Amino acid sequence: MFITFEGIDGAGKSTQVKKLQKHLAERGLEVLVLREPGGTPVSEQIRELLLQGKEDITPVGELLLFAASRAELVQKVIVPALDEEKAVILDRFYDSTTAYQGYGRGLDLSMLGEINRIASCGRKPDLTFYLDLSPEDAMIRKFSEKSIPLAFEEEELDRMERSGLEFYTNVRRGYLQIALEEENRFVTLDATVSPQDIHDEILRALVGRFPGLGY
Amino acid sequence: MFITFEGIDGAGKSTQVKKLQKHLAERGLEVLVLREPGGTPVSEQIRELLLQGKEDITPVGELLLFAASRAELVQKVIVPALDEEKAVILDRFYDSTTAYQGYGRGLDLSMLGEINRIASCGRKPDLTFYLDLSPEDAMIRKFSEKSIPLAFEEEELDRMERSGLEFYTNVRRGYLQIALEEENRFVTLDATVSPQDIHDEILRALVGRFPGLGY
Repeated sequence: MFITFEGIDGAGKSTQVKKLQKHLAERGLEVLVLREPGGTPVSEQIRELLLQGKEDITPVGELLLFAASRAELVQKVIVPALDEEKAVILDRFYDSTTAYQGYGRGLDLSMLGEINRIASCGRKPDLTFYLDLSPEDAMIRKFSEKSIPLAFEEEELDRMERSGLEFYTNVRRGYLQIALEEENRFVTLDATVSPQDIHDEILRALVGRFPGLGY
Repeated sequence: MFITFEGIDGAGKSTQVKKLQKHLAERGLEVLVLREPGGTPVSEQIRELLLQGKEDITPVGELLLFAASRAELVQKVIVPALDEEKAVILDRFYDSTTAYQGYGRGLDLSMLGEINRIASCGRKPDLTFYLDLSPEDAMIRKFSEKSIPLAFEEEELDRMERSGLEFYTNVRRGYLQIALEEENRFVTLDATVSPQDIHDEILRALVGRFPGLGY
């Protein structure tokens, strides 16, 4: 069972990942939770470069760094875990590349498809839960969580967040487009309802895909 | 003028790069010398990860890291320098990817072609000087330069060098194959003759390609 979560930061992916992890573990499954970019020593170093680096990175450089991190994670961790019948829950996968680098930064979508295919070694998630939230709502959530006065926002935000609202609006448009094109795999969830309601909806979709699981 | 140098470590690329740089500068050209992987802050961090990292990297991960480093270098440094009519001399470019990751590590050559095209943003060198040396000769040169007793070799060698002689034999086969396929761009030079003789041959090829240069 290979499950991915997608959505812009602040949409509540971590909360839902934890709830699903607990649910599956209680049903006796061995569950491995991972996040992208990261999950191997090399991938974590790449994560550092991408998210904390002080240097500007070109869109193509960024794409290839994400892809390198993904290739390491898929080959060293995900494929072995799936081979051992573990459930893998992954916080971000190649749909993030399509949404962020394609729709967000305007890179050619067919080039991205090729890079995604190489980096994921042809592996596809069984189900992808997309938590849909407007960038405005995501920003408000972020600031209230961190108790950051809005005047200090520029310094407190990491490189990705500095890209601004227009970028995230395009990213969201990308996710909604993927949802149209991949309707068998992609489950779009309203991220503004309560975490428990979202979790219940996730379980319903999961049982639809894996009837043996029960509810 | 965009010139690249290729060959396994120990073939004498650095020596020839310096001689050519001096020659072109004496003819009044502004010359920029770069090496791969590296040449931008992000690319240098990737270089560190690739060459000094203690972690094993998968072949696909390695490929994508080299590509990311290259994309940064091409867009941020090489293209702007060529646009300003500078001469760019680059120590390793995408032929290294084909030779090392393709012929050396056995990655699919058409996939590499696609990655090379993306990472180089379609830029091709005007001339590539390939210094041809057997891996055995390269190892002997390396040890004698560093004065390393052969018994300590494993600890003193970096990650790339540890890959062994068979790997480098395949890399050399790759370079010789590229030489066959790209005969208009690729100039194969015998790296066992004197540095001055190699330099003279490089100048002859250069004047053949850029007759305005003089000799």
